[in-house]
Order: sequence, then structure tokens, then C-alpha cells
Amino acid sequence: MTTTVRTRVAIIGAGPAGLLLSHLLDEAGIASVVIDQRSRDEIESTIRAGILEQGTVELLDTLGAHSRARTVGHRHDGIELRFEGEGHRIDFAASVGRAVWLYPQHEVLKDLVAARLAAGQDLRFGVTAEGIADAETSSPRVIARDADGQPFEIEAEFVVGSDGSRSIARATVSGSSQGGFFREYPFAWFGILCEAPPSAAELIYSNSPDGFALVSQRSDTVQRMYFQCAPDTDTAAFSEEQLWDELQKRVPGTTLKQGPIFQRDVLRFRSFVAHELRRGRVALVGDAAHTVPPTGAKGMNLAIADVRLLADALRRLLLEGDERGLDTYPEKALRRIWKAQHFSWWMTSLLHVAPDATDFDRRRQVGELRTVVESEHGRAFLAEAYCGWPFTD
Amino acid sequence: MTTTVRTRVAIIGAGPAGLLLSHLLDEAGIASVVIDQRSRDEIESTIRAGILEQGTVELLDTLGAHSRARTVGHRHDGIELRFEGEGHRIDFAASVGRAVWLYPQHEVLKDLVAARLAAGQDLRFGVTAEGIADAETSSPRVIARDADGQPFEIEAEFVVGSDGSRSIARATVSGSSQGGFFREYPFAWFGILCEAPPSAAELIYSNSPDGFALVSQRSDTVQRMYFQCAPDTDTAAFSEEQLWDELQKRVPGTTLKQGPIFQRDVLRFRSFVAHELRRGRVALVGDAAHTVPPTGAKGMNLAIADVRLLADALRRLLLEGDERGLDTYPEKALRRIWKAQHFSWWMTSLLHVAPDATDFDRRRQVGELRTVVESEHGRAFLAEAYCGWPFTD
Repeated sequence: MTTTVRTRVAIIGAGPAGLLLSHLLDEAGIASVVIDQRSRDEIESTIRAGILEQGTVELLDTLGAHSRARTVGHRHDGIELRFEGEGHRIDFAASVGRAVWLYPQHEVLKDLVAARLAAGQDLRFGVTAEGIADAETSSPRVIARDADGQPFEIEAEFVVGSDGSRSIARATVSGSSQGGFFREYPFAWFGILCEAPPSAAELIYSNSPDGFALVSQRSDTVQRMYFQCAPDTDTAAFSEEQLWDELQKRVPGTTLKQGPIFQRDVLRFRSFVAHELRRGRVALVGDAAHTVPPTGAKGMNLAIADVRLLADALRRLLLEGDERGLDTYPEKALRRIWKAQHFSWWMTSLLHVAPDATDFDRRRQVGELRTVVESEHGRAFLAEAYCGWPFTD
Repeated sequence: MTTTVRTRVAIIGAGPAGLLLSHLLDEAGIASVVIDQRSRDEIESTIRAGILEQGTVELLDTLGAHSRARTVGHRHDGIELRFEGEGHRIDFAASVGRAVWLYPQHEVLKDLVAARLAAGQDLRFGVTAEGIADAETSSPRVIARDADGQPFEIEAEFVVGSDGSRSIARATVSGSSQGGFFREYPFAWFGILCEAPPSAAELIYSNSPDGFALVSQRSDTVQRMYFQCAPDTDTAAFSEEQLWDELQKRVPGTTLKQGPIFQRDVLRFRSFVAHELRRGRVALVGDAAHTVPPTGAKGMNLAIADVRLLADALRRLLLEGDERGLDTYPEKALRRIWKAQHFSWWMTSLLHVAPDATDFDRRRQVGELRTVVESEHGRAFLAEAYCGWPFTD
């Protein structure tokens, strides 16, 4: 027998996008149900992205005391670009009067889950969406199975696919699960998590003849570092000592603080934007709608920006019966999405060594890096995008 | 019998670089001989580049009344970037407080020739350089033939190759005439010169689905326009009407003012930087040292910037016996050259439609254009490079 739940908005996926959307809708008095196939523990323990734009932090501020981004997270007023063995600081505060916050995504998720549960959110883990029915009617349904494999349905006035890069909702909205604009890159990141203090006060983005490296952080005791590798690299191919050697040689001038490496992974680089972001009463947000390579730290921030626009559109639809916000949601969201796609591509091409790069390409790249760091306008152009373009809609 | 002329600096090539160098040396009391295989009339009548950076105009100001850049030329305080059918002005004055001057290269050459002849410059047309001897001694020689085919030599303390992209001097300096960093592009410009008034007050750089177009000017009555074409395009392949159609469809929103087309040419796009800019007592400047695609209007300006540095180095060498300026000339010049190479590549890739561009690439490009024009920092970053980075050495 199928259990059916009725609500105003059905949200597939309890990532940052889905949870923040349920919060913003709740603030407007709009009920929602959020489902996710993963367990709460799985969601809260996977260490992923770590940089929040200023606008993201300001949206999380609406969680009140539940948001610990400003208290537990660290404000970063700049990053370092390193090339030809020299470091060049991009001073966000001086350039654009903005900042980013180092606050890992799983901590954001803990805050969001705690806030939603405290507010009585209908939040169901271990529930797997299998499809969406009646997308073009005023009562679309999510077809799902609960943790015990029992059929489960949500009947709603609107369905949101915030279900990540392997989105089920995308097939309904964008024609097929693969329907989109796509780019792959001929390199990947080898990432490590280690127990060590930070090696530098701010993040270091380093271009070196051996390839790119990013010296990032997660907390005072856990560090995240990456180095450019071939996409088919085996995580077991390196000893710990070899991993440190690979990292260290890409960051000349800074002695990396080493510690036990407790996680290693290879991040593939993909750029993707779904052909469509909305069909009838179903819309996509976040990774379901787009994927960016990680170099610009835009993934989670772009998801949050989508949610901000869609929450406003849903308020107009469900409180005022005005469809116009929904009609313009794709166009408005796509303007930021393509800017973020460009920025992510740009930071990637600016800093990585392409396997087929010629001597001309390498020298042009150094010319580009110099043009940026030697110009107050270049530094501000990069800083503005990194800290997040102001919301204008 | 070989005629031998003795001077302090032998300059091969009477383009803007060679002539300006002889002027700057003369100002310091250093004699030079300039030779060029072309006739004076040929040099003064070939219509080529047309945009002078502010720093270029300021250097030409040292010609006194001979420079007509500010009186006959037109100051331009901005350009328009057009894409998705909309124009966006880059306001140089507001962004960086600088400007460019529309003043064609052959007019610059007339000014320089007149100034040099008035100063008694030893300036010889129709003289073909065939090689350089004794480059690594303190008395290098230029081996040449005069207009009558008679052998002719210049014995000097220094030889400068300002002899353009088919430089003879490059073989001496950079190992071989082809020795350099190189990039080719899968498109070219179809250029026309026509008798018509300007179609717009400022230059229009237009990105359209059909490819790039540039609506440029040469004077109040002569206009220069270009549209992106395949590199192997035959200049005879279009009727006048077809040329106007090709141009017009790439510049939606502006009705081009038509007039008789009296010149048509196809400009290949190449990026080139010689491996070496100096060997012993021989140095390269301008197109002999580097070629840029025309999109950023950097070619002549970069030549002038080289000359400024080399003139200073030669003053130190020949007046003070100090070689250090020469030793650092390549490194200093190359910093600007690679920035200009990047800018020219960037303006090219920002505005042209690559034949193999995917749908993702096209949308990313529009995202990039939006990122630039919607940001005061983006506009200033572009304006600063277009007007020319300030000289810092």
C-alpha cells in the first residue's frame, strides 16, 4: 500500500539547497516536505566544499543562532595566487570590501538540519525518489520508496529537484537525465584530508610547472589540500610520503605542515548546465541544475543563489497566485550560473597546466597571471567574483 | 666595391619602431642610420593599424609639432562591446581616466619621417639588409644592398632589428628566423576600407552568432571594417553587396553607413614571440620580436613600448658605458610583451566564434562578456589594458 503525504512544496534532496529552501519557505509560512535517500549521519559527515561567499553567509544568518558560519567558521579577507615561485595576495577587503568564510559544507548541513528539525520540518532520510508524475498539472507528485522499500508518494503544489548531480528530477525537467551543456577537462584534483594545523593563514592557489595545487583548510586541526593529477589517477598509487612530495613541489616557498592523511579522493572536473531548469510545476536548483569544476569554490554558493531566487518565485506563486516569478526563474538563475561557469572555467584555465599546453600557452598564462595581480582592477575583478557577485534580483 | 657607412646605431627598418628609436637616440645625442628596403611612398601609403595607446601618444609628443596625433587624430574615450544584440560601452575615461587616439599608422609614419628628415637623419629607402656580421663584437655590421643592387655596409656600435615580422635580424638574435613561441588561430579577418562617414562615434567590437565584426574608422571619410572569416578566404569571393551583408548581419542594431569599398584584404591571426630579443650588440623590437592578433590593437603600441626601453638601454650603453640596461632589456620588454600577448589572445577569444565551439563554449563566452560589462572592475580591467598599462620601468 502506498503512503501518500500532502504538502505545498515537495523537495527532493536534503543538501544545502533543499534544506535552505525549506527554511526560506517556512519563513513565508509555506509548508514543505524534504526527502533524501541518504541517512542523516551520512549527510552530516561527508567533508566537501568549504568556502562560503558573503551573500551565502548573509542568507544563512536568517537561521539565527543555528548558523555557526560566523562563530565557528573563519572569515578570509584574501587568497594568495602563486606563480613563478612568488606569492601575490588578492586582498578582498581592500579590493571590494567583501570577504568569504571558511566553513565546511557538512557543518552548514548540520546547522540546517538542526534548524529545520527545531522548526518541526517534515524531513525524511532514507527515502529514495524514483520519479515525478503530473509535472505539468497543479498537483505534481513525487514517487518514492521509503527506507523499508515501501512505496511512498508526496502530493504537492510544486516539486523542487535539489537532488544533486545524479538528479532524478532532471529527467522530468530537462528531457533526459543527461540533457545539458557539457564540458570535460583533461585533469582532476587529487585531494587529501589530513590532521595538521594550517600551513598558511589563507588559501594558496599555486600555479607551478608541475601543475596546480591548492592549500586549503577545513578547521584549525584538519586541512584539505589538492594537487592536479590525471583524471584516471588511482588514489592508492601514492604513499603518504609521495603525496607530500607531490604537494610540496607545487608550492615552492612554503613548507607544508604535514600530518596523518585520513582521506584521499580524486575529483573529476566537469562543467554542466541542464538544458531546462523548469517544466510546469517542477524546478531544479543546485547540482541538479549545474556542475562547476571546484577551482572557483562556486558549487555550493551557486546552489544557494538558485534557492534564493526560487524561494521568492514560490512565495509569489503560492501566496499571491502570481506565476511570473517562476516564469523568469530560469532566465534570472542562468545569468548567474553562466557567469559562475565562466569564473570556474577561468580560475581553472588560469591556474592549471593543460596536458597539451605549448610553450606559448604556458608563457601566455604567466602573462595573464601577471596582468591580474599587477592591476588593482584585475585583483578587484577576481575578488568580486570569488566573494560572489552581489544579488541584484 | 662596398660602400661603408659608420654610425653609432644601425637601425634596420623604417617602421614606427625604427623611426621613433632614431628620434629618441638623437634626442640623447646619439647618431644612427636607418635603412628600409621599401620606398618612402610605399611606407607612407600603406593603411594599417589605427589605435594609439595614451602612452604611445605621449611618446610621440616628443616630436613636437611634427606629431599630429592630437590635432588630426581623434581621442576615443571608450569602445562598445556588443553581444546578444545589445551594446555595452566600456568608458575609458570613467574607468581608468585614460584614452586612446584613432590615428592611422601611416600618418604616424609620415610624422616620423618628416621629423627625422627635418633633423638631418641619415634615412635610406630602398636599401635591403641581407644579414648582420660580428654581432658579438663591439662593432657589429649590417650587410646590405642599395637600391641599385650595390653592396652596402653599416659599421656601428649597436644594431637594432626593427624590420618587421619577416625580420632579417631575427636569424642573428634568436637562432633562426622562425625561432620563437607560436600560436595560430582557426580564423582570420576580412578587412575593407571604404569611403564613407563613420557608422558610430566609437569603435564597435561585436560578438554575434555569425562571428565577430569590428566597426573601426580611419578618418572622417575613410572607414575600416572587419568581419571574422576562414583563414583561406579569397578576397574576391564576395561582391560589394555581399560584403555589406556579411558585416551588417554581425552588427545588429546599427545601420552601417556604406560607401565605395576601395581595398579588401584578409588578415591572418598569429601570435609569435621570438625566443631571444638580444644577442651581443644586436636587439629586436616590434614585429621583428613579436606578432599579436589584431583584436587588441596592440601591435604598433607594443613596438613603441619596446623602443622606449631599448632607447634607454642604448643611452646607458653608449653614453655611460653601462651594459646593465641592455642586459635587462629582454626581461623588461618580455613582461609587457606577454601581457599584451595575453590581452590580444583574450580579446580574440572573448569576441570570436571558434569553428569548433560547442554550445557550452558559446554560453560560457556570453557569461564572460556579461561578467566583464556588468562589473565596474571588469570594465576597468579591460579599459586599462586597451589604453595601455602605464610604463613602470
